[in-house]
Amino acid sequence: MSDSKKSLTLLSDLGEFGLIDRLTSDLPVYHKSTIKGVGDDAAVLDYGDKYLVMTTDMLMEGIHFNLVYTPLKHLGYKAAVVNFSDIFAMNARPRQLVISIAVSGKFSVEAMDEFYAGLRLACDQYHVDLVGGDTSTSLTGMAISITVLGEVSKDKVTYRSTAKENDLICVTGDLGAAFIGLQVLEREKNIFEGARGPQPKLEDYNYVLQRQIKPEARKEIIEFFETNNIVPNAMIDISDGLSSELLHICKQSDTGCTVYQHKIPIDEQTVKIAEEFNFEPTVVALTGGEDYELLFTLPLNYYDIVLAREDISIIGHITHKSEGCNLVTEDNTQVPLVAQGWNAYKQ
Amino acid sequence: MSDSKKSLTLLSDLGEFGLIDRLTSDLPVYHKSTIKGVGDDAAVLDYGDKYLVMTTDMLMEGIHFNLVYTPLKHLGYKAAVVNFSDIFAMNARPRQLVISIAVSGKFSVEAMDEFYAGLRLACDQYHVDLVGGDTSTSLTGMAISITVLGEVSKDKVTYRSTAKENDLICVTGDLGAAFIGLQVLEREKNIFEGARGPQPKLEDYNYVLQRQIKPEARKEIIEFFETNNIVPNAMIDISDGLSSELLHICKQSDTGCTVYQHKIPIDEQTVKIAEEFNFEPTVVALTGGEDYELLFTLPLNYYDIVLAREDISIIGHITHKSEGCNLVTEDNTQVPLVAQGWNAYKQ
Repeated sequence: MSDSKKSLTLLSDLGEFGLIDRLTSDLPVYHKSTIKGVGDDAAVLDYGDKYLVMTTDMLMEGIHFNLVYTPLKHLGYKAAVVNFSDIFAMNARPRQLVISIAVSGKFSVEAMDEFYAGLRLACDQYHVDLVGGDTSTSLTGMAISITVLGEVSKDKVTYRSTAKENDLICVTGDLGAAFIGLQVLEREKNIFEGARGPQPKLEDYNYVLQRQIKPEARKEIIEFFETNNIVPNAMIDISDGLSSELLHICKQSDTGCTVYQHKIPIDEQTVKIAEEFNFEPTVVALTGGEDYELLFTLPLNYYDIVLAREDISIIGHITHKSEGCNLVTEDNTQVPLVAQGWNAYKQ
Repeated sequence: MSDSKKSLTLLSDLGEFGLIDRLTSDLPVYHKSTIKGVGDDAAVLDYGDKYLVMTTDMLMEGIHFNLVYTPLKHLGYKAAVVNFSDIFAMNARPRQLVISIAVSGKFSVEAMDEFYAGLRLACDQYHVDLVGGDTSTSLTGMAISITVLGEVSKDKVTYRSTAKENDLICVTGDLGAAFIGLQVLEREKNIFEGARGPQPKLEDYNYVLQRQIKPEARKEIIEFFETNNIVPNAMIDISDGLSSELLHICKQSDTGCTVYQHKIPIDEQTVKIAEEFNFEPTVVALTGGEDYELLFTLPLNYYDIVLAREDISIIGHITHKSEGCNLVTEDNTQVPLVAQGWNAYKQ
């Protein structure tokens, strides 16, 4: 390329979020149907009585998945579900999906059938219509890109940027298991490669493996909001780790936050296996990624109704910006939250 | 994988269209907003007073583009435009775009800026809002996936499947130049790789190179339809070659067709360079691909108004299915049209 003699900046120096900010600054808007563009879990579009939300995600072989230990059916399922999670994070329901997929010409039709079986299963489970796509060749690894459209009442769309001071900070399910599942798969991948020798008992790892290989998106939380006429002030899905997502909400909402270490939900299998790997479970929950849980903030008056749900944890509250974003540890020390989200270019 | 001992079918044996048919058969539809799914240039969705159309395309390095001779700015432009072409092929206007892109961490920020400059230029030229995306790492080549939403009045949406017997078959612009441009680039790629020695005069190839490297989509044809209150009976964009697209229209419309060799529009530079390469120009126009022209069928009463336009050629007419799909050659011989469209898995 012509610029080879200039001093260039590597993407890995800038990081994913820095890069997105740079590439998408000052984007013009030509259509009044564009309500919200880059900067949330999904774009928000006005085409009728409701808002449409649109999100897209790309999964690359060797980066986001390893075919050595990922069954293709599970991969198809997960590729869809991670997009549904982004739609739920807008308080919307997924409706239509298009998929582009590139694989080697040496791929078998039967392997493609497996992938599509998983994709179609996810669409069936979440009631989403598969309406189009593109299939293509790859010279090297497999590439998958999915775009999903969803729908939400105009008065219920939920952004990252509208958390309010004193809001409860809530998180669904438990955190860190998907990351720990990935560590187990990486450690044991020789089994999947057909090596002989002592085989580990994978049943002891069932929960964390399932969280990594067949994640679900939190449809039932959106239904709970609807049934109880709750609209969160802010919401995001946890794909890069709790810490990174909390900082997104606070930065975009111009607030601070305080969360409590002992309130962060971590499954006991996650804790046990994290310790096997000499990981601090809280750090795993804060930075692990791929949990696809929902993180949202609610006015205080919802305290009782949320407390009654076993699948939602109240982990802290939104503060004034001047207080910063902090974690209160179990020994009652306050430490600043740091963005340790996944830097895609530092692999 | 577990199926390694069974007899498997390679994707290259089935071809892209066979594969799509297999993977997308019997798809359930859960939402009444889904009007048309897989099987046209774009899906058609009902969310308001107008229809939305949604299309997606994936471009893989080494398959769809070669960075040796493709400037990144042009690549960004082309990646958007090929999707706009699919939107126009539904008689719709593009409105919003999301992009997923995966590149090596060793890619420079400045290279990414170049790509985005081209993407943003295309969005500006065609008045499309860039509303979201995903940036990610690739272990090997670059992968680009773009999804575009467009809008069309419900009474004007145009499918592939509704051509009528006796319709005029029309094509915009001229055909085969993009394919010939690619041949020139492939032949001369040593220049771009920095080889010394006699340099070809690329100015003699300007038109075909521009058609390959910076294609445009036929926005003005959709405006012409609107101004003149014309709704084509059927339409498709020419990405895989005239022959393949005509067969799509006839198969899906359950008709035949007759087209005339001497009516197929081919630029004189294309003819000249095709002969340099010992290609028959008509074969190039029929099978070349990447022209991004529109192919449409119209009732006979539009004959005069279409004839008056220099950028539209009437190349034949739709017939009864029993007559088959035929090309009448310059010596007045009738030969069946054959699908020689690009088989993505036979590279």
